[in-house]
Amino acid sequence: MTEHLYFEDLPVGRHFLSRGMTVEADAVRAFATEFDPQPFHTDAVAAENSLFKGLAASGWHTAAMTMRLIVETLPLAGGVIGAGVDELRWPRPVRPGDTLHIDIEVLEARISRSNPSGGWLKLRVTTLNQDAQTVQVIVPNIMATLRGVPA
Amino acid sequence: MTEHLYFEDLPVGRHFLSRGMTVEADAVRAFATEFDPQPFHTDAVAAENSLFKGLAASGWHTAAMTMRLIVETLPLAGGVIGAGVDELRWPRPVRPGDTLHIDIEVLEARISRSNPSGGWLKLRVTTLNQDAQTVQVIVPNIMATLRGVPA
Repeated sequence: MTEHLYFEDLPVGRHFLSRGMTVEADAVRAFATEFDPQPFHTDAVAAENSLFKGLAASGWHTAAMTMRLIVETLPLAGGVIGAGVDELRWPRPVRPGDTLHIDIEVLEARISRSNPSGGWLKLRVTTLNQDAQTVQVIVPNIMATLRGVPA
Repeated sequence: MTEHLYFEDLPVGRHFLSRGMTVEADAVRAFATEFDPQPFHTDAVAAENSLFKGLAASGWHTAAMTMRLIVETLPLAGGVIGAGVDELRWPRPVRPGDTLHIDIEVLEARISRSNPSGGWLKLRVTTLNQDAQTVQVIVPNIMATLRGVPA
């Protein structure tokens, strides 16, 4: 059983690093076939002649893999529930075979005005590949439970 | 063969409406099991006792379904390629059985400074359920090819 994290465990400036997750070519094609059916995400030959110059994961696949790593890396009491994301950028393509990890930084933390048992956290979640190149940045706003309040 | 759209086909203020897409409970659980494994997205009973008060799709699943509808609704020459999203909000949960559609509005359009054969479009993509309630808003920035330039 993973120990839960609470609002107080995420002070501004703290970083959390995830494990690495390898991106499989089959998974890139399967995700894209269902959600982003465009040749540069599904067909290696067609992708060579595209802007991406080779098969690239859908940005939404990168976002979904990032969420998987967030859930594993931040075992918040009550779960990771977000109201939205201030910004989402994909500065570089994700390729089959890449190994991704995330670096979560706490940018802001404030107690909720409407719910005294909870707080809001603004995070910067940077997704990097095995060469430490940034492939995605998101700035989500999530809820967190205060310690001592039943989850 | 769908006719392609070009930069000139997306003037500021124009709207594009998608078909409806029904959200299957099995798909909600499958997506969440892979990418957002939290009880309120995977287990109907546990979800009853969560903030969501019932099974809800992962926000990233809603984003992925929205991308599917964008690709179908905006058959851009060269494909739909985004550099990022200015804002992403999930004001209301998506439930199994919901039928979603999207309303795409062109907010800004400008010729690229670095690439005279292309332009940048800022869109507002609103995802709505069968009761016309907004479940997601994204503001993506995408590229589009100018008409008359080989795709």
